[in-house]
Amino acid sequence: MKEQKNTAILLANCPDNKGIVSAVTDFLFKNNGNIIDLDQYVDQESHHFFMRVEWDLNQFEIPKEKIHDFFGTLIGEKFRMEWDIHFTDQKPKMAIFVTKLSHCLYDILQRHQSGEWHVDIPLIISNHPNLSYIGDRFDIPFHVFKITKENKAEQEAKERALLREHNIDFIVLARYMQIISSEMIAEYPKKIINIHHSFLPAFPGAKPYHQAYQRGVKIVGATGHYVTEDLDEGPIIIQDIARVSHKDSIKDLVRQGKDLEKTVLSQAIWAHLQHKVLAYNNRTIVF
Amino acid sequence: MKEQKNTAILLANCPDNKGIVSAVTDFLFKNNGNIIDLDQYVDQESHHFFMRVEWDLNQFEIPKEKIHDFFGTLIGEKFRMEWDIHFTDQKPKMAIFVTKLSHCLYDILQRHQSGEWHVDIPLIISNHPNLSYIGDRFDIPFHVFKITKENKAEQEAKERALLREHNIDFIVLARYMQIISSEMIAEYPKKIINIHHSFLPAFPGAKPYHQAYQRGVKIVGATGHYVTEDLDEGPIIIQDIARVSHKDSIKDLVRQGKDLEKTVLSQAIWAHLQHKVLAYNNRTIVF
Amino acid sequence: MKEQKNTAILLANCPDNKGIVSAVTDFLFKNNGNIIDLDQYVDQESHHFFMRVEWDLNQFEIPKEKIHDFFGTLIGEKFRMEWDIHFTDQKPKMAIFVTKLSHCLYDILQRHQSGEWHVDIPLIISNHPNLSYIGDRFDIPFHVFKITKENKAEQEAKERALLREHNIDFIVLARYMQIISSEMIAEYPKKIINIHHSFLPAFPGAKPYHQAYQRGVKIVGATGHYVTEDLDEGPIIIQDIARVSHKDSIKDLVRQGKDLEKTVLSQAIWAHLQHKVLAYNNRTIVF
Amino acid sequence: MKEQKNTAILLANCPDNKGIVSAVTDFLFKNNGNIIDLDQYVDQESHHFFMRVEWDLNQFEIPKEKIHDFFGTLIGEKFRMEWDIHFTDQKPKMAIFVTKLSHCLYDILQRHQSGEWHVDIPLIISNHPNLSYIGDRFDIPFHVFKITKENKAEQEAKERALLREHNIDFIVLARYMQIISSEMIAEYPKKIINIHHSFLPAFPGAKPYHQAYQRGVKIVGATGHYVTEDLDEGPIIIQDIARVSHKDSIKDLVRQGKDLEKTVLSQAIWAHLQHKVLAYNNRTIVF
Repeated sequence: MKEQKNTAILLANCPDNKGIVSAVTDFLFKNNGNIIDLDQYVDQESHHFFMRVEWDLNQFEIPKEKIHDFFGTLIGEKFRMEWDIHFTDQKPKMAIFVTKLSHCLYDILQRHQSGEWHVDIPLIISNHPNLSYIGDRFDIPFHVFKITKENKAEQEAKERALLREHNIDFIVLARYMQIISSEMIAEYPKKIINIHHSFLPAFPGAKPYHQAYQRGVKIVGATGHYVTEDLDEGPIIIQDIARVSHKDSIKDLVRQGKDLEKTVLSQAIWAHLQHKVLAYNNRTIVF
Repeated sequence: MKEQKNTAILLANCPDNKGIVSAVTDFLFKNNGNIIDLDQYVDQESHHFFMRVEWDLNQFEIPKEKIHDFFGTLIGEKFRMEWDIHFTDQKPKMAIFVTKLSHCLYDILQRHQSGEWHVDIPLIISNHPNLSYIGDRFDIPFHVFKITKENKAEQEAKERALLREHNIDFIVLARYMQIISSEMIAEYPKKIINIHHSFLPAFPGAKPYHQAYQRGVKIVGATGHYVTEDLDEGPIIIQDIARVSHKDSIKDLVRQGKDLEKTVLSQAIWAHLQHKVLAYNNRTIVF
Repeated sequence: MKEQKNTAILLANCPDNKGIVSAVTDFLFKNNGNIIDLDQYVDQESHHFFMRVEWDLNQFEIPKEKIHDFFGTLIGEKFRMEWDIHFTDQKPKMAIFVTKLSHCLYDILQRHQSGEWHVDIPLIISNHPNLSYIGDRFDIPFHVFKITKENKAEQEAKERALLREHNIDFIVLARYMQIISSEMIAEYPKKIINIHHSFLPAFPGAKPYHQAYQRGVKIVGATGHYVTEDLDEGPIIIQDIARVSHKDSIKDLVRQGKDLEKTVLSQAIWAHLQHKVLAYNNRTIVF
Repeated sequence: MKEQKNTAILLANCPDNKGIVSAVTDFLFKNNGNIIDLDQYVDQESHHFFMRVEWDLNQFEIPKEKIHDFFGTLIGEKFRMEWDIHFTDQKPKMAIFVTKLSHCLYDILQRHQSGEWHVDIPLIISNHPNLSYIGDRFDIPFHVFKITKENKAEQEAKERALLREHNIDFIVLARYMQIISSEMIAEYPKKIINIHHSFLPAFPGAKPYHQAYQRGVKIVGATGHYVTEDLDEGPIIIQDIARVSHKDSIKDLVRQGKDLEKTVLSQAIWAHLQHKVLAYNNRTIVF
């Protein structure tokens, strides 16, 4: 069980300019905030600046509830930043979407239960009842919304209402076999994490392991990414691969791929939970 | 320097059938051939059989020059095999094609010179004179054939004549930046090895590192494959990858990619030299 | 769910000799056994021969119950083989030993439940009651044997009795934090699979992640191996690694290591279940 | 060819304290230095602070020759820093030590010649004449100092004199098969980079591939590290691995290991050339 820190994490980006780091660190120093971790990156092509800084709140002199106001006024506006500040003592709320495959779901729930992650999981949503027994085992409400062409909009509206009701911060698609609607994406921008079972951009769409087998690749992969309007085109958070050979049938690729999928998805969730990921222009900065 | 073996290597494929392995091994055993290595594989989808077997010729009772005849008559025809037998005391002859980048060329020549590979390199061909000094350094004739739209067919005909004159067995494209013509491919079927600087089928064609950067991938790759009529679509021999991050510029991807390219290309050449690769229907069996 | 095959698998080793493969494949062919997979290997240093062959039993003319007798008499004795034949329609019985960490246990049980593995798990044994709720969730009897210096021999004797009663074929130590006694090892020779949380032979013994942190390594690993009398010295089945950096604390190494441990352990179990592993002289042949 | 930057790079470490980043960035900002890259790290166990910052000198208002003085007085002393500032327009001078194996040497010289690295290589030193022809090919003076037990101190003294004469900044041991004396290490502290042909701390000392084969590992490795008094115990810069199987003989391990060795060594040199490595207490921070 990880002991809980009392820190704040700033994720910010803005056009590059002289003095940004100096201004931010000066702001923290003058208010008695001890920097625990600072990472910055300047994209030399677009001249855009990215920053993540974590500082200790224990002796920080600006009260927690005023930090947003102060930072925005003194720093954010000046540098025309997009920014957000997260407090690590607040547990994010995560919803899981699944269909019929259990490997990612178990992997997530085992981590949650063993205290590896600082997160709440108020609910699981599925378009099939098959895995509801897993929700039962882990005492997490499992909601089934069967989806057809006809009822899709209606069912997703119910899902969104449920997510709102539970103040869900972000969504994990743990091999959820439905395309997410634009409305859902708009409501959770860069807050829906999907696992695609190939090394994107190779083999987007359906049945990537069949495609990989046909092409005779010697390596298969998995990709954790944020969901955007363009299917399998969202910003990539993490990728990993496994070596395969001519001896591996499609079934073997599927079996080995599952190990990749669950690990990559959980690593993507971990990075997101640490507020280490900043998505910008379809690329991610993973600090 | 590897001490030279006196062995024969059979590479064979045919429709699957009972008794193939038994027939081949019985043929070897009865003629006093000691099997050093045997590997077989049956594709359960196409019911096609693949085999590689290496045996000691020292006490083998069929004279070397008659082995093809005997094997073909007694085994090959019976099972409708495509097959070939290679003798390891014969040094294959390899031609290298380059353009302007030296990393793969040096890597190949260093291995050749240090005795890592059992191969002759009678010549290097290039469409630019830039790297001719490397040929000089390693005492390998370096032939420049400048290629334009107009003279391409003519120049390639000269190249093919030169290759024939030197009894070239196979060709390595060591970052050769010209599309190989159908005539050349027809003359060296599954005998032209190319290195593509991406993890195929991701990023085929030109400037794969630029494409990879734009897509924001977290892993880049390289692919060693046989050249076929379909550009970047030939059977894959070997692939490898390197992890990259948002910090890596296109230049960084290029730099890291070079390390992959030279290693993957040399590993593909090694596998080919060991007669470990059997290309079939756009996939490879790498024993 | 994998559809069950009706095949036999021979694992054999003996001093190398001419005609072994020929004799085995001839035996199968003459009795109408279709070879599905054959792999052999000769250690050129020790001149020792290793073989794995799988054949279809559907039209095989020797009745199943007589195969051992016939093979032993006709082939095994002749070549002084150590050998075993496994029938793939028989489900092996596996016991799991755990202590307090749940990640490997969940990983194994998820695979078992989803039908990824063809195995029975009649029981879980632990020296602590902490994870008994997981046994409950998966309806697998969970037996607690608390172990002290004083009662160790006695408790292990009870465990062995329980294992015998359930006809356990092999044992998996899923982060079991007790040294296995010689008696247990003797009863399950090369049938106890352990996961060690380092890249052996680096960091054997206790607290390998602490050792790895102190040494400042840039890669951590995990090792799946058979248990022998010499702690952490048994034949290695599978190893895998993860890259780490100076930013990773010991806690981070532990967290990332868990992902390796569960994957490597499950891959080792998979190889064992496929009868692909042959341990000989403290090395393994993994076909 | 990389176009040359006009930047300065500060590498610093000191006991952690509030306000360090603020002080450094303020110093740069007030003097009109644009930060190109900043990375910092605090070891939470030892409460020690590490920093690397690179800034543009083009409009920086402190003259280059005064930067050391100003920084030391205003910042370095205040925080009790160990620090150094490097100017990227100055080419470091690197000496290479070799014995008989050519793969690392060619790899380094190819990179140097193709302009991949911003470095001068004034000389190669060897205890054997075997590779002198490579020095000739690349027009780099190749000095042979044969070493026996009796003359070792004397010969090394001559080597050190030669290194001083050429103002060598750092030394690369490219599979140099001699133990470096304490005097040499003292003169080039954390400035001698060695490649060890195993995954340290596994298999230190001689013949690591033989050791790896005997132990039956499934992965081999290579380690780039700084040389210290304790053989193979110095701070690790980079490690990499390759998967091997029972089919790989010792010769195969050696062959595959060479690919690792040259790549890992060159990556370690690259990191050192970028001033990205900070060695502290036998661990490295690789920014």
